[in-house]
This record gives sequence, C-alpha cells and structure tokens, in this order.
Amino acid sequence: MSARAGIVVTGTEVLTGRVSDRNGPWLAERLRELGVDIAFTTIVGDRPEDMRAALEFMAARELDVILTSGGLGPTADDLTAEVVGRFQGREMVLDEELERRIEDILRPLAKRFPNIDMDAVRHGNRKQATIPAGAALLGPVGTAPGLVVTPADARPGPTVVVLPGPPRELQPMWSEALATSELRGALRDAATLEQSTLRLFGIPESEIAETLRAASREGVPLQRLEITTCLKRAEVEVVTRYEPAAADDYEAFVELVRERHRDSLFSTDGSTVDEQVAALLRGDGHAQPRRTVATAESCTGGLLAARLTDVPGSSEYFKGAIVAYSNEAKVALAGVKESLIERCGAVSEEVACALARGACSRLHADVGVGITGIAGPGGGSESKPVGLVWLSVALAEQTGYREPLTRSVELPGARADVRERSTSIAMHLLRRTLQTR
Amino acid sequence: MSARAGIVVTGTEVLTGRVSDRNGPWLAERLRELGVDIAFTTIVGDRPEDMRAALEFMAARELDVILTSGGLGPTADDLTAEVVGRFQGREMVLDEELERRIEDILRPLAKRFPNIDMDAVRHGNRKQATIPAGAALLGPVGTAPGLVVTPADARPGPTVVVLPGPPRELQPMWSEALATSELRGALRDAATLEQSTLRLFGIPESEIAETLRAASREGVPLQRLEITTCLKRAEVEVVTRYEPAAADDYEAFVELVRERHRDSLFSTDGSTVDEQVAALLRGDGHAQPRRTVATAESCTGGLLAARLTDVPGSSEYFKGAIVAYSNEAKVALAGVKESLIERCGAVSEEVACALARGACSRLHADVGVGITGIAGPGGGSESKPVGLVWLSVALAEQTGYREPLTRSVELPGARADVRERSTSIAMHLLRRTLQTR
Repeated sequence: MSARAGIVVTGTEVLTGRVSDRNGPWLAERLRELGVDIAFTTIVGDRPEDMRAALEFMAARELDVILTSGGLGPTADDLTAEVVGRFQGREMVLDEELERRIEDILRPLAKRFPNIDMDAVRHGNRKQATIPAGAALLGPVGTAPGLVVTPADARPGPTVVVLPGPPRELQPMWSEALATSELRGALRDAATLEQSTLRLFGIPESEIAETLRAASREGVPLQRLEITTCLKRAEVEVVTRYEPAAADDYEAFVELVRERHRDSLFSTDGSTVDEQVAALLRGDGHAQPRRTVATAESCTGGLLAARLTDVPGSSEYFKGAIVAYSNEAKVALAGVKESLIERCGAVSEEVACALARGACSRLHADVGVGITGIAGPGGGSESKPVGLVWLSVALAEQTGYREPLTRSVELPGARADVRERSTSIAMHLLRRTLQTR
Repeated sequence: MSARAGIVVTGTEVLTGRVSDRNGPWLAERLRELGVDIAFTTIVGDRPEDMRAALEFMAARELDVILTSGGLGPTADDLTAEVVGRFQGREMVLDEELERRIEDILRPLAKRFPNIDMDAVRHGNRKQATIPAGAALLGPVGTAPGLVVTPADARPGPTVVVLPGPPRELQPMWSEALATSELRGALRDAATLEQSTLRLFGIPESEIAETLRAASREGVPLQRLEITTCLKRAEVEVVTRYEPAAADDYEAFVELVRERHRDSLFSTDGSTVDEQVAALLRGDGHAQPRRTVATAESCTGGLLAARLTDVPGSSEYFKGAIVAYSNEAKVALAGVKESLIERCGAVSEEVACALARGACSRLHADVGVGITGIAGPGGGSESKPVGLVWLSVALAEQTGYREPLTRSVELPGARADVRERSTSIAMHLLRRTLQTR
C-alpha cells in the first residue's frame, strides 16, 4: 500500500477566490512523483477552528502525511504554526537563534524601504520565530521558517509539514523537508506508483470512453489501471496510474488507443504540444532542420507569443511577434494589404495567411503564425459569429512560400476561453507544419 | 448568523495538479456576493469513498449548503450524481424526458465529428440522464444536467448543489440553481456580509501589519472587522469583511490606511489597476483625454499586451504590440538604434525608453510601454542579474515626446514570476503616467 497524503491550503484570500492556489497542484505533483497517493486538498480561511477541523478530518481518514501551505507570515492572521503545534500536542516556544537568523535576513529590506518601521519588522520577526517545541526547522528561504511536526510523545497520527505560501519559498523548502528523518519516517512505506499520460487532439471525450468499453470487449485488461480522462485546452488528456507490475497491461492499453486514434494521439511520453513544438524548432534529433518562429496575432493579443516564450531558452528560436489589434497595425507592421482587409474583412482566411506571411518576412523567421478572430463578447455577426477564429501557419523556404496550413474554428465559451483555445490550436497547426514539411 | 457553505471540487486531474481549478474561486466569489460565508473548499479525486467523506465532513461541520463541481461527464469515472444521491438518501432513476433532451443536444456533435460512434454517445447520454429521485434539474447547458438535491424525507442536513466541471456550463447553471426553491430555502437565513478591498503598491506587507497595530494604539476599533492581507502580483491587498452595522469602523480604518500610506494606496473601491488603466485610456470621467496605447516587449514576450487585451472592448484604445525578442526585431520593428544596443546592452534604461518610444511611433499610439529584462533562468551576469527589468512609459504629445517615466527593478522568483510581476509594475507606471500627465 502506498502512503496517503492530504494538503491543507490556508488563507482567506485563497478560500474566497481572490488568489488562485499554485501550491496545492505543485505539491500534488511532487507527491505523485514519490508514489504517494493524494486523497484530499482542502482550502481553509484564516480561522484557527476551521484549520483544526481540516487537520482532524485528514487524521480521521488515517492519512500518513499532511502538508500545509501559507499562514506563516508576520501578521496576526497568520496562524498555521500555532494551530499545527496544538494539533500535535506541542507547546509554542521562541527559538532565539532562529529569531537572530530572521533578523539578518530582514536587514536588506530596511535598505530597500528606507522609511520602514523597524519595530513593526521586529514584532513580526519574533512571531515567526515562535514554533512548536521539537519541530524540525526548514529554511527560512524568505523570512518564514517551514516546519516538520510529528505528534508529541510518539502518539499515532500524521506527520505535518508546514510550508510557507509564496511558491518560491515553498518549493526549495519541500526538498529540505524530504531530507528530514521525520518526513522520511512517515513516507517509508511509500510504494512506487507509475503515472503515464496520453494526449489527443481533435476528438471528443466520448470517443475515449468508447475505447475504454472496447478494451473490455476485446479482452484488454484494465482492472489494474486507474484511468482518468479530461478535456484541457482543446485536448483530451488520458492519465493512468498503476503499480509497476501492471506495466504490460498499460502497454496493451496504449496499443489499443494508438490503433483506434492514430490521427489524434500526439503524445505518449508525457510531453506537451508546447514541448514538442520547442523541440521541433530547436531541431532536436535532427529529423527536421532547426527553425525560427514569429507570430502576428490579432484576437489573441500576444498570448501565443507569451506561450512560446514561456519556455526557458526560447530566445534561441523565437524571433518576435506583432500584435496587430487595429487594422492600421495589420497594414503598417505586418504588411497586410489594406485592400485585402477591405475585400475579405479582418477576420478571414486571406488575412490570416497574410499575417502568417507578414510575421515571416517582417521578423525574418522560418515559420510564421497568423491568428485573427472574434474573441467577444462584442463584434460578432451572423456570418462571423463570436468564437470564429482563422489560423494560419506559413513556412518560408528559399524557393518562396509554400501554401500555408490554414484552418478556421468556431470556439465555444467566453472571451478568455476563445483566446486560450486559439493558442492551443495554433500550437497544433505549428507542430504539424514543422513535422511534415 | 450568515449561512455557511462548502465547495467540493471533484476530479483526479484537479487533485493531482494537472488541471487548475477555476470553479472553486468563481463559486466562492458568488457566495460572498450573497453574504454566504464559505468555510471550506475540498478537492477530491474520482473515488466515491473520498467524495462521500468530504460531504460527511462538511455536514458534520453543520454547513447549510454544499456546492460540487465536476464528475458529471459521460465516462465511468464521473460519479458525482450517484454519490450525492446516496449521501442524501435518494434512489437513482433514469429520467427519460431528460434522456431525450440530451439526445437533441448531442445531434450537432455527430455533424462535427462524422466518424463518431453513436452507440458510445448514447451510452454516456443514458448515464447522464440517471439522477437522484426528486432532485431539481438545472440546464443542461452542455450535455450534463446540474442538480439541487435536498436530504430525503425532510431529514436535517445540507442542501447539495451539483454542478458540471466546465466553467461555461457551471456558471449559467449557478444562476438557475439560485432560482430553485430548494436552494432559496437553504440560504434563507443568509445575512448580508459586506466585503471591501484596499490595494496598495510599492510597500512590504509588514507595513500593513504595523498599521493594524497602530490602529489599536490610536483607538481605531477593529474588533468587528475581519481583515486579511496578502501579497498578489507585487501588490498588497487588504480585504475586510464586516456586518453592515460595522460600516463606520471600516471607514475609520480606511482613513487610517489613507493617512499612513497615501503614496501606495491606489484603490479603495475594489477596482484593479487593470480596470483603472482601462478607464484612464477610455477617458472615463473626462479628467484626462482618451488615449491609445501600444507596447514593445522583450522579456515579457507579449504578456503585457495579452493582459491589456484581456479586457472586453480593449480594441477601442489598444493599437497593438511589438514583441521584440531578438535584437534584430528591436531594430527592425521597434526602431531601436543598433548602436544604442551595442553601447548600452539590450537590457538597459536607454533601450527601454527607445522601445517605449518605438511602440508609440510605429503603432501611432498616444502612450507606449517598453520592457526589457532578464527573465531567467539563464542570461544573467554580475552587473545584470536574472530578475533585472527596465520598464519605460512614453507619452507622445503634439509637442514631441516628453521625458518617459522609466524605472528598473530586480525581481525575485522564477521565470514566470519575473514575467508576471513585470507586467504588474508596467501597469502601475502606465497608470501613473496617464493620471498625472
């Protein structure tokens, strides 16, 4: 049996939806890599009784480990250390050495904010140095130390790992936590669980459901595979968890999916379309030449460029982008002919192609992507409704431009959905162009 | 006492961090508007026993309402309707009229995917039409109906609102749920809770903590205010919840914050810097003229343009953007002089100004924003470390360019943090420029 874990995310700002939580998903991924099974993530506000109830709930479900994030700051509403200390039956004590270390960390802050109230800083500092007796210390990376707190007096119960809210503090502290004997002890029974991901583009989720039923008809055994499917940015993701002994079953399942969905299945090794496009542009494996890319975007407003440059090292192959929101900009920057816009409209196959070619020529790139559409909520018409997007990928060759790969889609959803899905579809068109030509 | 609610988000893909949850925050915000106090959001996987445990936990905490999202799809791992039905003591029954309605909805799908397996579709259809006896139906908007399920036989316990996972289906169904007598009954005791937000830019969180302590020294009463502070994209957000009777206390608190943090406090009415910039560009209130904007971005790779165009109607004032990732693009598209880049380096005050001015002139905009920096992880040096970003906002006037507002920052965190914070700081520089000139 693998170890089971829960995550408690604290903070009224997260609970009430003002801040979206990045720590829960990140910690869940780390647990999965360790083969630890995650059972619950609970978000609670800055109320000690609710936080306590969440801890008790997870203890009652016999989880081995609970991770908390947030509530370690210098302000009075930051209560996690104290709630966890009491939950584990431990006194709160001031750690004077820790107090001095935090003081050293805070000194540069005083330089950055010359008018800062140092009494205020010291008050918060002392609060952050007051920790459950006997807890293992992590960090601090920022000013808040993390903690690993086992139940007092060797009582049974989960080990609680207390981590700060800012991801850049939490993430390095998690590695530190893993090195403590306390957490290693709690996780010692963890079995390795494999997790593998298939990604498909261009089919509805129901087709995968049917393939799962077909598996049982055709005698492909799925009992030892925990398969979940979900729609994600215009893709279907099929994630399977299994014990190493079931690896053959998983291979048989992949074979079946490959057979039934050859055209849609684009990833069996966990890679995303973003990673595949980056590898193709870099010329990894040398099946294709190295190529540079540029975009000319209207309705996506720079989102595709932002997505392409999200990858570290993208400056190697990303030349730049033109966000041509106004027709004026389409003409002046991307070289689209004014007469073409007048004749076909700004949202049209012709303008998408012209944008793709303009991106190539103006930015001296090997591949150009053009996007033009109606993201809404306004601007739609009977013939060109909200959600209509034209996308085009042009490849510049020394022999002149080949015919660009151009598609139109009618996307459902609100403005943000239309914009995001458009970038996904553009990535897939880009991938196909780079792979086949 | 106001009604208390909990949210149960289902889906292994959300629990394991592969998909980030948008429904919990959205529903939390809607509950808040109704004056309903949210106590917990719990994310569970597609395991019926864990989902059941989460419902029981919330019932034991005496919550009045539980909202669930997800798990209503056509595949076998979608179990929410059944788990909730059993939890409320209700039988599962096939609703034949609902089955026919879902069939009608699915017909166009068959047109879009000509090779679709209609048996597979009907199988999922029948599953989605099997619901707890006596439940109130919502939608369907997609193919999954939502449900409002009260405890059977008038037993005490929370009313459960079952909503689908896709936000564009969940959101309209929530309005429908509010119109049902079942949910109205559960919320009838809801008192109105006010929530107000202050936003500050350019100070550390500890300064707000000190202001809270100063309040008690100066006799400003805070006992009836539930105040939480958090750091969010380089801003400090102070959110206060209070009953209407405590409105005077809140006003006194705001006065104190205004007095102590006049330069940092930029929003007292809940507006974001994005909304303020949009209003300034539109010339709302006519204190400033209407102005158009354009950006020339290097390290942010189009993120600022994407953020500016996230606002519906932004085409009114947003002209376009140049993502000048390569030096070649900075020269060719944004008109930065090659000699300037050679002399000062691509990440420099001079190049930031030149980008801002280039955005203005090349895109015929009234205001231009230039950003150049080192987002990392590579590319840093001793004199220009990772996280160094130069930002500049230039205002084009008929009398020629005024001196741009230019700043450098050294931002902590990973690539994505540096890029996101840079756009926030740019928004604040843009706001200040538009307000004062």
